[in-house]
Amino acid sequence: MNILVTNDDGIQSAGIRTLIEIAKEFGNVTVLAPDSPQSAKSHSITVEIPISYKLIEKTDNYKEYSCSGTPVDCVKLAIHELVPQKPDLILSGINHGQNTSLSVIYSGTMAAVVEGTMNKIQSIGFSVNNVSPDIDFSQTKPFIREIIRKVIDNKLPAGVCLNVNFPDIEKFKIKGVKVCRAVNGVWKEKFVSANNKYKNAFWLTGEFENFEPHAKDTDEYAVQNGYASVVPVKFDFTDYSYIDNLKTQGFEK
Amino acid sequence: MNILVTNDDGIQSAGIRTLIEIAKEFGNVTVLAPDSPQSAKSHSITVEIPISYKLIEKTDNYKEYSCSGTPVDCVKLAIHELVPQKPDLILSGINHGQNTSLSVIYSGTMAAVVEGTMNKIQSIGFSVNNVSPDIDFSQTKPFIREIIRKVIDNKLPAGVCLNVNFPDIEKFKIKGVKVCRAVNGVWKEKFVSANNKYKNAFWLTGEFENFEPHAKDTDEYAVQNGYASVVPVKFDFTDYSYIDNLKTQGFEK
Repeated sequence: MNILVTNDDGIQSAGIRTLIEIAKEFGNVTVLAPDSPQSAKSHSITVEIPISYKLIEKTDNYKEYSCSGTPVDCVKLAIHELVPQKPDLILSGINHGQNTSLSVIYSGTMAAVVEGTMNKIQSIGFSVNNVSPDIDFSQTKPFIREIIRKVIDNKLPAGVCLNVNFPDIEKFKIKGVKVCRAVNGVWKEKFVSANNKYKNAFWLTGEFENFEPHAKDTDEYAVQNGYASVVPVKFDFTDYSYIDNLKTQGFEK
Repeated sequence: MNILVTNDDGIQSAGIRTLIEIAKEFGNVTVLAPDSPQSAKSHSITVEIPISYKLIEKTDNYKEYSCSGTPVDCVKLAIHELVPQKPDLILSGINHGQNTSLSVIYSGTMAAVVEGTMNKIQSIGFSVNNVSPDIDFSQTKPFIREIIRKVIDNKLPAGVCLNVNFPDIEKFKIKGVKVCRAVNGVWKEKFVSANNKYKNAFWLTGEFENFEPHAKDTDEYAVQNGYASVVPVKFDFTDYSYIDNLKTQGFEK
């Protein structure tokens, strides 16, 4: 099978190197990943300047390219320009930092996964609750292998991808895997003065506020308690249940 | 009431000037919008450099600021730093270019709206199916006024915002308003050589492929036929219906 690997931390990060190693066990691999960190780039695409790519390595079963664009640019460029055959599987990550709850909407890692799904390709994103660039990913490997194997065997339905989050693997020996829903919460921002020469310049910082810390069926609960979480993700934004309410309220005319 | 106005085309665009004019009829207005175009920036936030803002105008009931960040940065900066009282309503747009179907996921205009909703603020996005910077927005005004009025009167439920798209108003006299679902489709990309001095440099171009062109309950159908579309949008990515399937497939361990 043909596998595309990407991420948002950049092509040199330890996370993507681990994922590439595992992907090679499953088939032909093309890597197309950002040439610099692209965290929190969400589903953004580059439309105001051209994007470019660079071949890094090429063997019979392996091609590696870096790209000047965002993670979603990488997926689009791979599918529509660089990979002659549509990939059978897209793997994104392993992200250095967790993508539970609504972090999916900010995450470049998961945006690449959603873009793959939009293009009807089986897609999985992996993240770990630790932002260290030097983390040892060894204990995630058997879990990743098994999740990939199960997706290949069972096939995800159209429009559905997986968001996999590992706990802090420097703190926990991974206890197991839980299928979850995304917890409800929000990022509470704090803007900290940048103390540079510019007026009104701020760093965006913040912390996650969990609206339901005791709900055991959520990704956040699993990850905080030493389990890997698997959340089925869809990208349909329409709230079908509210269409009739709007009609009743007289929005149509 | 306190209203926050933003967009992704930048603070000088004709679309936001129209929206500001209407917003002033409803209450105290704060504008915080990007100082340069931020189209297709999706839900990205600026984490690698500081963001800054600049006061442009200030009267008793009106404050206008430009910001160096993305549309979502603007909403976060407004709520958590610049506006002492949480806004009652966020208006985003009017976007020069339509945001029907899955364009919601790429759109900076709609990302600002979704960010507002995450922060439990009533939020509406407006777009028009014409990308000209000089378009005359006059005929959209009574429709925008009425939609804002209905949202104020009826209140959207938690987690739901509105995506309003107008047809090409240079081609159509707006026929009416339809409450719709987002159509299924995908952007088919075409990478065009940038013909600059860099190797492998491309412009990202493409066109929308509508998977269900004859479905009359969709936003795309409404807009293409001269109507404004109103789609209730939610940002919950979990596919609840597929959680049990994954459990049956043995993902948990």
